[in-house]
This record gives sequence, structure tokens and C-alpha cells, in this order.
Amino acid sequence: MQQKKIQQVDTIIHARWIIPVEPDETVYEYYSLVIQHGKILDILPSKRCLKKYSCHTEHNLDTHALIPGFINTHTHASMALMRGMADDLPLMEWLSEHIWPAEGKFVNYQFVKEGTDLAIAEMLRGGTTTFNDMYFFPDAAAKSADESGIRASIGLIMIDFPSAWAKDSDDYLHKGIQLHDQYRHHPLISTAFAPHAPYTVSDEPLEKIKIYAEKLDIPIHIHLHETQDEIDQSIATNGLRPIARLENLGLLSPLLMAVHMTQLNDDEITLLKRHGVSIVHCPESNLKLASGFCPVGKLTKKLINVTLGTDGAASNNDLDMLSEMRTAALLAKAVAGDASVLPAHSALKTATLNGAKALGLDKITGSLTIGKAADITAINLNNLESQPVYNPVSQIVYSSSRDHVTDVWVQGKHLLNNRQLTTLDREQITQNAIEWGKKIHNESNL
Amino acid sequence: MQQKKIQQVDTIIHARWIIPVEPDETVYEYYSLVIQHGKILDILPSKRCLKKYSCHTEHNLDTHALIPGFINTHTHASMALMRGMADDLPLMEWLSEHIWPAEGKFVNYQFVKEGTDLAIAEMLRGGTTTFNDMYFFPDAAAKSADESGIRASIGLIMIDFPSAWAKDSDDYLHKGIQLHDQYRHHPLISTAFAPHAPYTVSDEPLEKIKIYAEKLDIPIHIHLHETQDEIDQSIATNGLRPIARLENLGLLSPLLMAVHMTQLNDDEITLLKRHGVSIVHCPESNLKLASGFCPVGKLTKKLINVTLGTDGAASNNDLDMLSEMRTAALLAKAVAGDASVLPAHSALKTATLNGAKALGLDKITGSLTIGKAADITAINLNNLESQPVYNPVSQIVYSSSRDHVTDVWVQGKHLLNNRQLTTLDREQITQNAIEWGKKIHNESNL
Repeated sequence: MQQKKIQQVDTIIHARWIIPVEPDETVYEYYSLVIQHGKILDILPSKRCLKKYSCHTEHNLDTHALIPGFINTHTHASMALMRGMADDLPLMEWLSEHIWPAEGKFVNYQFVKEGTDLAIAEMLRGGTTTFNDMYFFPDAAAKSADESGIRASIGLIMIDFPSAWAKDSDDYLHKGIQLHDQYRHHPLISTAFAPHAPYTVSDEPLEKIKIYAEKLDIPIHIHLHETQDEIDQSIATNGLRPIARLENLGLLSPLLMAVHMTQLNDDEITLLKRHGVSIVHCPESNLKLASGFCPVGKLTKKLINVTLGTDGAASNNDLDMLSEMRTAALLAKAVAGDASVLPAHSALKTATLNGAKALGLDKITGSLTIGKAADITAINLNNLESQPVYNPVSQIVYSSSRDHVTDVWVQGKHLLNNRQLTTLDREQITQNAIEWGKKIHNESNL
Repeated sequence: MQQKKIQQVDTIIHARWIIPVEPDETVYEYYSLVIQHGKILDILPSKRCLKKYSCHTEHNLDTHALIPGFINTHTHASMALMRGMADDLPLMEWLSEHIWPAEGKFVNYQFVKEGTDLAIAEMLRGGTTTFNDMYFFPDAAAKSADESGIRASIGLIMIDFPSAWAKDSDDYLHKGIQLHDQYRHHPLISTAFAPHAPYTVSDEPLEKIKIYAEKLDIPIHIHLHETQDEIDQSIATNGLRPIARLENLGLLSPLLMAVHMTQLNDDEITLLKRHGVSIVHCPESNLKLASGFCPVGKLTKKLINVTLGTDGAASNNDLDMLSEMRTAALLAKAVAGDASVLPAHSALKTATLNGAKALGLDKITGSLTIGKAADITAINLNNLESQPVYNPVSQIVYSSSRDHVTDVWVQGKHLLNNRQLTTLDREQITQNAIEWGKKIHNESNL
């Protein structure tokens, strides 16, 4: 008999289950995932795998499920340093009396760098492989992402008021585009315009952002229709609801990532669908700030692309996508009055592939698909808390918690190895966070 | 100088923080808790502690917070064996097409014993020290609780239809009272009548339960106003909303634990207040089954006793009180449209002391108070995910997860020691659950 040629590859992961997300509602049992040069080379039954491939590194995850790494489509990563600083307050009081004053006093390059280090460490330990950030000093966030090896979409922040990062809208825009240029060929870091919100960014900078976003083909990431107050204020000031204002400015398009969207009428939902806008749902932040309920059931029924974000840890108070996905799946049912809304497979898709689509990264990541990057999260289902396993997707969405995440790969690099971070210094990051906490506590009358 | 006498005690726990829940909104820093004969003998500054006491066992939890153990006021413990068996379905379809047929086929003494073992293991690992159960074969649940050393209120189940446990309402009642008598002097196990729901228990057994509950001075634990359908059906059948029917039957009293209560008008809230009824809020189950939203903000404003339950793992899908408390705190704000509703300290109280009150156990447990039982949960806040700590109560409610629970004591007995169960065989329990999962899967066309 003729000997078949065995191909040498970088890594093989044998898993009890592989849930690729694409194709829909698929679960492979006793399959292996083959990684070569950072990409997924093959996904095949484990029995056949070692007849076809040999590898440098082999992992036997025989009680685990592999899923695409989570894509956190809205966060302010470095605000992890403000976790629990001010709770149980409504959005505007929380922002204007607590968050903005603290930001004015403490936010600088080092704050953002060390805060983002903390956030990335938390996100990797929770199975997130890509995050979409919005904050001051995006250069520091990009540096942190680059050092860690996580995939990131760095927000080119724009806001009408001056900050330690930029003095006016032209300065924000200029610095943003400069950062975009700096990272345009980076394998893991992309950029998105990040105008803060309709109520903090005026028409002229929004129009410029529209032009540049189309030219550079990058997303526009904005807080939108977060609260009823925002709508009321916009009507009083502009005579228009914020979505209508953005429509007039030409911002509604498949590049737009509209974050929160708790206030939506049926005409607006139709409008969002027509323009191919992606919705970034942040259920825990919306609940905590009493902002309202995003009508996820209505949006998914219209096949609008709904993605999932944690928001910053100051309003959540964690960056835990497993918990966010569970909250989203539970809440969507009660809001719709229909327990079949956002079932487990769909919830997993909002937390992975849909996020990649919104970020324009779905050719690269978001599903376990041959040819895509090996951005993978392994979840152990051999815990007492996961038993018995009738359906691994159900157990992941409704019963798993972040400590069940054992391993994470981004572009084939093993960033979390049996719960240990391989590129980040956990002790140092924790110590930095403690020091920032002391400083902020002591200097701001908390 | 005169030498002060040093008292010999069983256990001393030195903690970074002690959050006693009673008095309200109190946080002790660098305090120690002294345990003697299963009770809390003293709580005092650590500096003074070792001048006053010496002990057999000393614990230095210098990055931890001690809180009263969680009190899970509504669960069907052994349904942990049906975790994830049927998801994304509304209550009546889920019950009548999945849960009830499976119960008819599989539930027996061994199912309840081994399912309750699984549930108790999960609850202890998540910081729960007391649970209030409702299920068939309560004798098996009581046996499991007794073996584990957890505190339990065992439901004396009543339902109109026959089951493997009892053949008719007199049989249910008789077996229930027999169980009550058997455990009446048990140090950790109490009982409560547990008529399933107004729509499954007719007037006559409810009237008998009322009489016996008053005579024995034990709570009545019932599903009530869970869904709009339940209300509509009751009006169609009895011409009354279920609460009105229970009022007519004389069941509204401080002994009543009304579970779910997602459908409540203002008159009913006034009625509940007047009769001193306790509400058992199960937010995750209510969301997952799309049952509705319990108006927690309105209830707490009226100073009605709101407690917290996970419901069974088949509709949750875990028994994680930390997560349930967080969901309750987040959801209450959005439902009330007020971010100040159910702040962190109040959320912790619903998950502890309020539960003890509802169960008539508040002289024994529910707060870290001198003279009460040493039912204690230690949560480590020295995790990357908990940093920085501005306010330990905020970190516990909004940022901690069950893997941060390190130690649990019930009546002074160390049941979870650095995350290891001391009285239960985790391997055996997991294996039993896996076997039940296989059996149920294979024999019920899942």
C-alpha cells in the first residue's frame, strides 16, 4: 500500500467539541483543529487527523469545547482602573459628577497604558480575543494591545471638549489619522473612528469623520440612543432624534456601529436595516445605568447585525463576555416576551461572528473556519457546575463562567495556557491597578 | 500590670473586610471573627483579637471579605440533573412537554438524592450556606443536606397530580408532616410547606396547609403570579387573580413565601405589605422563561421583604447566588428606570438576611452577628478581575464571580476549604451526574 504523505504543521488541538459558529448551529464532536502560520488549516475528525498531520505542539482538550474567541465590540478598556469607583447612579450624574472629573484629573498616557493592560489581561482570561476600544490616548491602548498579542480595533476618539489627549476637533482628527497610519499594516491592530456621542460631538467633526471613514474604509463607533434623556435633549437642541441627525449627516451605513440603542421606534429599526447599520448591544451597562432595554428580538427578527459589548468596567463592572452573552440571551427573551428569542446558538454568534462583521474583520476572524486566523477559546465543560452536558452550546451560554475558560489563542499564538497568561505579567498588572486605585481614592475624596 | 485572661476558642478568622449585613451598610476593616461551638462569639479588630482569644484553628484571609453565607430561597435542587435539558422555551411548553414528562419517567429517590448532592456541591462552591427546596422525595433532599452539613429548608411538596412520591393530596400532606416530625429537632434542617402553585393545587389542600403551617409555625413556599398566563387562567377558572384566591383561603401572612411575582398591580403590592408576605425574586429564571419582570423597586420602596432565589438549574441554568444577586441588582434598576434602586448593600441583604427572615431563621442565620450561627462565606478580592477595590461591597456584587469564593462555614464547620469541598466527594458527584445525563439523554429522545 502506498504511504500517504503526512503534513507537518504548527499546532493541533484535539477537542471534545468544536463549535465553529459558521456554519450555523453546528457542533463537531471529537474533532481536531489544525493551525499553521497563525491560521486555521483544517478542522477534521480526530480519528483522521493524525493520519494526515504531524505537529510541533499538540493539545488534548478532551473535555473542552472550542469556540471562536469572543469579540467585545464596545469597551473603554482602561476604565478598568475605575471599576466600582461610582455605582448605583444614573448615566448623566455618573458621567458628569464622577467619571468626567476623575478623567480630567487622572487620565494620561500611563493611565491608559496600565488600565488597558489590566483590561486585556481580564479579557484574555475570559476568552475574548478581539476588542473594540474607545478612549483617550488610543496610542497607549494600541501599544498595550500590541504587547499582549490580542486583536484590537482601536478607537480614534473624537469629542467636542479638550482633553489631555487633544485640544480641539481638528487635533483629535489629526492624531487619530496619524495613529491609523501608524498601525495600518499591523497584523492584529485595526482602527475605527470613535466619535463619543451625538450629544458631545457637533456636526462639523461628524461630517469630517464620515468622509475619512469612507476613504479609509474603517468603522465609525459611536454611543447612540443610550437613554431617553439623550433623545429629549437632541429634540430640544436640534429638533431631531439623534438617529435622524446622523442620517442627515450621512453617517448611517454598514460602517456604523451604533452602541446601546435602548430607545428605538419601528421606523428607526427599518432605517437601521436599510442602511446596514450594526447594533452594539451592552445589556449589563444598560441595566446598571437604568438606560433602558435594547429591543434585541425585534432587531434580530429584521436580520439586523447585533453584536455584543461589555462597555467599560466602570459601568458593568467587568469585561466578562461569557456573562454578557448570558445576560443578553436571558434579557432578550423577557424584553420580547418570548422565550425562544436569542437562543443559545444565536447568542454565541452575537458574541463572535457578528462582532467581526461589524468591525469589517469577518474575513479574518469571528468563526472557526478554514483560512481564518486561529482566534480560539477553549472552555472546559468537565466542571461540576457544567454537569450533565446535554448540549454543549447551552452549557456554554447558560452555565459556564469565565473561570471555565482554560486556553486562548490569537492568530495561533497561545496567549492563555491553562489559565496562565503567557505574554502579560499578571502580578505587575495587578500591582499597577492597586497603585492606581490608591492614588485615585486618595486624591478624589472617594 | 495584671495579665488579662485569654479565652480559648474553636476558630478565629482574620479578614481584610467583614461585611456583617446587620447593622446596615457596615464594613469592618482588618477585623476578626471568633467562632465557638458553631456560633459567632465575637467580631473585633484583629489587633485586639489575639490579646483576647487563642484558638485551635486560625485563618488569615488578608485579601478576603467575609459575608453571611448566601440564602437561596427558591430552588428545586435535584433538577440540577436536568440542567440544559430544554432551553429557549416558554414556561408552559417547557414544563408540559419537557420537564413533566422527564420527571414522570426518571424522578425517584435516587434521582433526588444524587441530584441534590450535585446541587449542594455547586451551592457550597458558590458561597450558599442555606437553601429552600421544593421537590418530590423531600426525604432524599433532606438526607443529602444532612450528609453535606449545609443548612436547608426542605419543602413538603403538594401538587394535585400523583407522582412517584405520593398518590394524592392527603398522601402528600401525610408524608410531609411525617418528614417535618422526623427533622424537627435537627440543628440544620427545617421544613416548609411547598404547594407547587395555585394552578396545580386546589382549595382543599391549600386550606389544610394553612392550618398546619400555623400550627407548626413553618413557612408556606409557593410559585405565585409567575406569568400573565397564570393570571388569565385563574380568572377564567376561578374568577379571581391567584393572589385574591389565596387571600380568600387565608394564606396571605408572614409565613407566605411568594415566588416569582412578575405580575403585580399596586393594590396587590399594598395587600402583600399589609399581610407581611415575603417575595422570592428569581430574576434569571423569570428572564429565561420570558415570564416577566418582578417590580423589585416598588416592593423595596414599600419595605416588603424581598429575598433571592436561583430557581432550579433547569431554568437558570446554575445555582450561582453571586450571579443571581448581580442580575437582581442590575435588572431592578432598569425595570424601575432608576439606577439607584437595589444598590450593592441592599442587593447583598436580599441574598442573605432577607432570606433568613422569610424562612423564620433570622435569629439563627443571615447576618454576621454575635450569637448567630457561624454561616460564613469568604470571597477573595485579590484577583486581577476585582482590582482596584474602591468599595468591597461593590466589588462583591458587581465584579466577583463564584470562583472567587474560597471558603464556606456552616454552623462553624468548614465545608469549603480553599475551594475544596470537605464533606462531599466531588468526583463521585460529578460521575453520578454524568451517568444520569447519559440515561436521561438515551431514554428520552433528547
